[in-house]
Amino acid sequence: MYSYSYLFRFTQSVFEHIGLTEREANQASEILMRAELRNISTHGLVRLPEYISLWKNNRITVKPEFKILHETPSTALVDGGKGLGLVTAPKAMNLAIEKAEVAGTGWVAVRNSYHFGIAGYYAMKALEKDMIGITMTNANPLVAPTFSLKGMLGTNPIAVAIPAKDEPPFVADFATAPVSRGKVDEWYQHGESVPEGLVQDERGILTNDAFALQNRGAIRTLGGDRVHASHKGYCISAIVDIFSAVFSGANFGPTVVPTLGYVKGKDGMVDNGIGHFFGAMRIDAFQTKDEFKKNMDDWIRTFRAAEPVEGEERVLIPGDPEREAEAVNMLNGIKLGKKSFEGLKSIAEEFDLDFDTSGFDNA
Amino acid sequence: MYSYSYLFRFTQSVFEHIGLTEREANQASEILMRAELRNISTHGLVRLPEYISLWKNNRITVKPEFKILHETPSTALVDGGKGLGLVTAPKAMNLAIEKAEVAGTGWVAVRNSYHFGIAGYYAMKALEKDMIGITMTNANPLVAPTFSLKGMLGTNPIAVAIPAKDEPPFVADFATAPVSRGKVDEWYQHGESVPEGLVQDERGILTNDAFALQNRGAIRTLGGDRVHASHKGYCISAIVDIFSAVFSGANFGPTVVPTLGYVKGKDGMVDNGIGHFFGAMRIDAFQTKDEFKKNMDDWIRTFRAAEPVEGEERVLIPGDPEREAEAVNMLNGIKLGKKSFEGLKSIAEEFDLDFDTSGFDNA
Repeated sequence: MYSYSYLFRFTQSVFEHIGLTEREANQASEILMRAELRNISTHGLVRLPEYISLWKNNRITVKPEFKILHETPSTALVDGGKGLGLVTAPKAMNLAIEKAEVAGTGWVAVRNSYHFGIAGYYAMKALEKDMIGITMTNANPLVAPTFSLKGMLGTNPIAVAIPAKDEPPFVADFATAPVSRGKVDEWYQHGESVPEGLVQDERGILTNDAFALQNRGAIRTLGGDRVHASHKGYCISAIVDIFSAVFSGANFGPTVVPTLGYVKGKDGMVDNGIGHFFGAMRIDAFQTKDEFKKNMDDWIRTFRAAEPVEGEERVLIPGDPEREAEAVNMLNGIKLGKKSFEGLKSIAEEFDLDFDTSGFDNA
Repeated sequence: MYSYSYLFRFTQSVFEHIGLTEREANQASEILMRAELRNISTHGLVRLPEYISLWKNNRITVKPEFKILHETPSTALVDGGKGLGLVTAPKAMNLAIEKAEVAGTGWVAVRNSYHFGIAGYYAMKALEKDMIGITMTNANPLVAPTFSLKGMLGTNPIAVAIPAKDEPPFVADFATAPVSRGKVDEWYQHGESVPEGLVQDERGILTNDAFALQNRGAIRTLGGDRVHASHKGYCISAIVDIFSAVFSGANFGPTVVPTLGYVKGKDGMVDNGIGHFFGAMRIDAFQTKDEFKKNMDDWIRTFRAAEPVEGEERVLIPGDPEREAEAVNMLNGIKLGKKSFEGLKSIAEEFDLDFDTSGFDNA
């Protein structure tokens, strides 16, 4: 086990080592650590070696220019200047919030950015200002539209955070594909098979083989097949791709230049990075704050009080499990997975930073 | 077979009979007929008896006041005054478009409204102004959140329409549940069973029984079960419910007063109608119009050119099948289903309107 503050400080030192300012390194570490706290470790410290590799290969710069290229009272297009998503995205979300303060809502599309951690982090930033937060991003093409032989879309997450009054906020934060690449990788590493209906093989046929993604297979869209409405999952993932990458002029769908070794990029691909989309809506844009929050409390209480089916404890409100995990992990510490641990250890060795390896052994 | 114009005129005469102005009746008929043209007949003329029944029971008024209760430069809250959705929704979408002309984007939440036909109709209105259109609505509670014994959410459609340059627009228009109530009703009427994973019975267990919805069962959310990410489908349907009904102060989730005989409402329920959410975003809110449309053409062509799996003809762009159906149905005429036909016939008899029944027999 590691304490939150130990891992936070180590991560910050890594980001400072590659040239982020103290403030940026602090911000970037906070985002990754929030994923660890919320038990979304697929988007936490395990990504650090990927960021370092992008930096080494000059795919990202640590001194990016944040440029507003186009704007209206409620919108802006930002060029992230090939910075880390963890550096660019917080600024873009702030810009959406500033727009919303004046226009009621603010919407910012970003290009030339990279992986930004958990989408929910940015959506939740809006809560502090009594706003609804919305985040989307596109990602490496691994998801096959209905009837497509190949992965054309990313797992393309959406996050929506909505404030309430006495209840904790509603925070939905999910990849629009039914499983993440990280989850399939985990099944593969543990020698487990993939449940039916989630992944297709190189011929486009449903498979249980967790190696399929590394062998020209693809994740199916939410729904799984046409009978179970995979075309709706395709629509949802496509909307995220278009809002993130067509609105911004980033690389969309299959033109995203992969950050993963086993997803093959084409020679000579133009790299405008991936795209993000951020939204902020003042809750008093539609009703008074009090009315809105009371309504939202009612919604949350109604759904939390829903009778569960036999064998299940309760109906969850989106954000409940992650919020509960945050409290537990902050208190008890964070258990690193093997891949995360080895990534941090090898970064520490390479950069000659102190890293206490006993935290892994004593887990 | 019936010609488009024959059914349009008949429908208009029905709406005029109950007291809509000529202009409103024309608009309402256009929306229902658009559903027929696009082969979304579950949201077309089959709904006319339901509207008449709401009117007879004083659930709706044909002279509603359209009242803007609250606004910011980019948003508004509208009270639909218990009008037909087909009358109120076009005005609300226009308001979103007007807001977008000034602020870059416009967002309108509506309460005290009722069923508004196909969501896609309103989203597509934005296309005429070189805008992206977004529509959501909540609906009768028939869909069970993950682990819930009962239906708490509507089939809650989302429509997103995005203009392109030389390509036809991207138009996604879909219920967020994997099947519509109408589809399950059809299976029941045809004596067919429900494919596994779509519907649960009165104990919350997956069933193939198409009668289950009428026997305290519920539709599952997109994904079907936890392993296949039904919790993501729950998040999506919940977001539509909150945007449509919490933002507006309409009846949300299970508090929606049913318009269907077999969904039981509770005595003394407050009826603020259902809620809608409309969005319009200028395509030049993020880039120049030319850049945006070129990017969107690229997106559409890339996905249309995707290699299909063996046995399938092509990867579809959302909106392709409906657009193709429109062209065919406009040319060849519209074939009414038995339920639609009988509904129209009985309305004609009751209101003493001419209706040519031979169009059904000669289909």
